[in-house]
Amino acid sequence: MLHLHSTSPTRWLAQVDQNLKDILIDHAHCEQKAAATAMNLMFDYVENEELCREMSAIVTEELEHFHLVIELIKRRGIRFYKMKPGTYGRKLKELARRQEPYKAVDHLLIAALIEARSCERFVLLRDHLQDAELKEFYGSLYESEARHHSTYVRLAKTYAPAEEVDARLEELAAAEAAIIEVGCELPRVHS
Amino acid sequence: MLHLHSTSPTRWLAQVDQNLKDILIDHAHCEQKAAATAMNLMFDYVENEELCREMSAIVTEELEHFHLVIELIKRRGIRFYKMKPGTYGRKLKELARRQEPYKAVDHLLIAALIEARSCERFVLLRDHLQDAELKEFYGSLYESEARHHSTYVRLAKTYAPAEEVDARLEELAAAEAAIIEVGCELPRVHS
Repeated sequence: MLHLHSTSPTRWLAQVDQNLKDILIDHAHCEQKAAATAMNLMFDYVENEELCREMSAIVTEELEHFHLVIELIKRRGIRFYKMKPGTYGRKLKELARRQEPYKAVDHLLIAALIEARSCERFVLLRDHLQDAELKEFYGSLYESEARHHSTYVRLAKTYAPAEEVDARLEELAAAEAAIIEVGCELPRVHS
Repeated sequence: MLHLHSTSPTRWLAQVDQNLKDILIDHAHCEQKAAATAMNLMFDYVENEELCREMSAIVTEELEHFHLVIELIKRRGIRFYKMKPGTYGRKLKELARRQEPYKAVDHLLIAALIEARSCERFVLLRDHLQDAELKEFYGSLYESEARHHSTYVRLAKTYAPAEEVDARLEELAAAEAAIIEVGCELPRVHS
């Protein structure tokens, strides 16, 4: 699914069941981080007109999702607070090469993989959770993650030949699957 | 005007006349930096619901303006590129106190002053420039800067008593006027 090399382990759904509140709070943080990632890419590659246009659209959409999660959290009487992130994002970002144009390719592909994993997990949540509101919520969100995944992969191909990008995507997807396999003891969206 | 302690020196309009292209390119960067500032404030004060809502709206609006400037630049056949920033923003940010809640107050008030100065200069551009399209463009933008100024000042008052915030705003506005007085040799929106 969307270039991912693994499906999520059942362990993760157990983490969700035991810590739904933390997952929801982390989800809000994820939307905000996704907006920040798009904003940073815009800053770093300001001369790429297509990238700027797409990143702006993603920033706006992620912030809308952030507010949807915040409202949902609030309706449930859960206090939103700044929560320690899991290790997933950091571990993935450490894989990025430092030199251009590889740096651009890697940052875009890492963003693509995070969107892909979010998409996979939102579908899992839609199918697994009993709560009708949450089922509908995650059912309504996963498509945009898939769309962002494609946008990031397409933009990576403005920095290197398509076959090179595809090969690198496979490498990074294998590394991503290994990170997911190890997991993170904190209950988070990408644990 | 909007708590500013000075009007812009005529020197600045001379810089504009001699380097209009650079001013336009820097203006695009300013809109992007304004979006990033709002995004960073959202990250730092994620528990402040009102702040998050307002910052999201500002991010979206600044990105819209960024694209308006980019399109205008493109229509004029000017190449957009990553340009070295002037010294204004850095000098202002150095004035911020490091400890909370003063840090929050200062970062919000500094953002308020940058919006105020932009507003003042957009009005100057509207009145000074001969180019009909640019006159209209700057005439259409200054109001949102004034609105953002008020939002930032109001949010600062969620972190300290109103009279304390007002006093600090006067201090920072005096420092801002001194920075503007010295100026910056690079032709920029805030030189």
